[in-house]
Amino acid sequence: MAKRKIVLTGDRPTGRLHLGHYVGSLQSRVATQHTHDQYIMIADMQALTDNAENPEKVRNNILEVALDYLAAGLEPDKNTILIQSMVPQLAELTMYYMNLVSVSRLQRNPTVKTEMQQKGFGANVPTGFLVYPISQAADITAFKAEVVPVGEDQLPMIEQTNEIVRRFNNVYKTDALVECEALIAKVSRLPGTDGGGKMGKSLDNGIYLADSADEIARRIKGMYTDPGHLRVEDPGKVKGNPVFTYLDVFATDKDKVAELKAHYQRGGLGDVAVKKYLNEVMQEFLAPIRARREEYAKDPAEVMNILKKGTAKAEKVAAKTLEEVKEAMQLNYF
Amino acid sequence: MAKRKIVLTGDRPTGRLHLGHYVGSLQSRVATQHTHDQYIMIADMQALTDNAENPEKVRNNILEVALDYLAAGLEPDKNTILIQSMVPQLAELTMYYMNLVSVSRLQRNPTVKTEMQQKGFGANVPTGFLVYPISQAADITAFKAEVVPVGEDQLPMIEQTNEIVRRFNNVYKTDALVECEALIAKVSRLPGTDGGGKMGKSLDNGIYLADSADEIARRIKGMYTDPGHLRVEDPGKVKGNPVFTYLDVFATDKDKVAELKAHYQRGGLGDVAVKKYLNEVMQEFLAPIRARREEYAKDPAEVMNILKKGTAKAEKVAAKTLEEVKEAMQLNYF
Repeated sequence: MAKRKIVLTGDRPTGRLHLGHYVGSLQSRVATQHTHDQYIMIADMQALTDNAENPEKVRNNILEVALDYLAAGLEPDKNTILIQSMVPQLAELTMYYMNLVSVSRLQRNPTVKTEMQQKGFGANVPTGFLVYPISQAADITAFKAEVVPVGEDQLPMIEQTNEIVRRFNNVYKTDALVECEALIAKVSRLPGTDGGGKMGKSLDNGIYLADSADEIARRIKGMYTDPGHLRVEDPGKVKGNPVFTYLDVFATDKDKVAELKAHYQRGGLGDVAVKKYLNEVMQEFLAPIRARREEYAKDPAEVMNILKKGTAKAEKVAAKTLEEVKEAMQLNYF
Repeated sequence: MAKRKIVLTGDRPTGRLHLGHYVGSLQSRVATQHTHDQYIMIADMQALTDNAENPEKVRNNILEVALDYLAAGLEPDKNTILIQSMVPQLAELTMYYMNLVSVSRLQRNPTVKTEMQQKGFGANVPTGFLVYPISQAADITAFKAEVVPVGEDQLPMIEQTNEIVRRFNNVYKTDALVECEALIAKVSRLPGTDGGGKMGKSLDNGIYLADSADEIARRIKGMYTDPGHLRVEDPGKVKGNPVFTYLDVFATDKDKVAELKAHYQRGGLGDVAVKKYLNEVMQEFLAPIRARREEYAKDPAEVMNILKKGTAKAEKVAAKTLEEVKEAMQLNYF
């Protein structure tokens, strides 16, 4: 049997996961768990780089994110789910990599640049935030990940990692570090229920994996549609109409969706009716996820135990990499 | 018995230690070991921040610096001598502190600014180098050092550390971190044998603790004196004349030094004669140091064992601090 490729993926624990996360990453992770050696990191240290004053937010979301993982169908035995801060080797690797990357290189990183603008940091950017691409390189290389699923906007992070890998291996004459490949998410972003570009807590436009049936119904009822579609008999637009985008993604009966689209476009199909169908689809889709979540949520200690086991396994791997790194740097004194 | 105050001090292992180190720090450490709980750190990680491409230089100087410590009279049982990179908690603390310090704050640090100019880094400064004041704060706070001996030019580093301490304790509502106090070196810098401001390897103007008797004699013979003192009968200058500066520092017979100075100033005392006396003084001063060094150098494994023991003790202390830090940040999941 050929060796499975190693994948590293994960999330910052700053909130529960929503359908955007499902479509953008959870779904493909559920597939990848059968074909790859998959590490899923709950990146609490990274979350702290711009949440230093809200550690309780980060702390509280560790369990929530883990529950969302399990709910989505990620199996504890098929993945290594770990907590970043509990793998101390990641901090050590970051320290060594920091010497191989100039400050101006970090400041030129397009992903960080954009995020800094979005967050309005200016010169007051926390050092940890500017440095997080290096920390991410430590995460990726610690597990010798060969594949890293990312969005288009995260490609510069992969480039930064591979730059560090090449520089390190070259300077220290080693092959301890492994270059990785970006796996670009196939599905484009799911719009928020307001038709906005991205689901987010601050925008209050998301449907969460943990949402109750009532909450889901309420969200769908309030969803943005075609603002020009005022009367049932008017022709409506399907493009840019999140109700249909969701149907495209989640409805299994593609013929029915095609039919609804045609009807909506020629007029005579009301938003209420389409939303009623979308609600059915989403309830059916989310019910088993919610049920698994509720089942796991009954025993949080067991969930933490899954994280503990995953973290221990991850630490062992990271310790081996760090040993190789320190040996290459000749820092293996005793 | 009152609790002894904790001191943290140390050196970057980038070369053997010279008389400048002795006068600037080793001497006072030898005194402090009897009155304080003294941690002496061989800062290999810090050395790597601007020596990333020369790890063997850093590695090779670990033993040399340790030998210099022992030679100078630092007793293994009275001090905790440790290797920075072997205390992984220091990297972890650095990661958390990085979120509490802005990049612009680091760029404003006068010590780093000056050093960056000296090293000609410009925008290409390695991230690790810009970040080293934070790493230093991790070193100081990990051992809860209350006293840190520094030169005047290092005062901004202490300020930076105390800023982090106050910010951390305030944000995370804890008293886990302890503010420290700078202990300014009493003796001003020893000039190089060329009369320059500072001894350094690149200037080839130093007398090293490990230097042989011949090497010392050679160095003193070639020492810079008063360039206006051309003939023995000419009056000579004592001020800015390193031969007399050295005598002031190392000669125990202060009357004799006063007499020589007077003679030199009124004329009739040749450089050769003064240097001959300085050579006697320095040989007497350095002989027991060199003897101790040679004795320890016979058994490098035993010296490494001293470092190993010190590092293990240091790691225990740092682990306790890190535990408190992570508890305050609520990162104590399991």
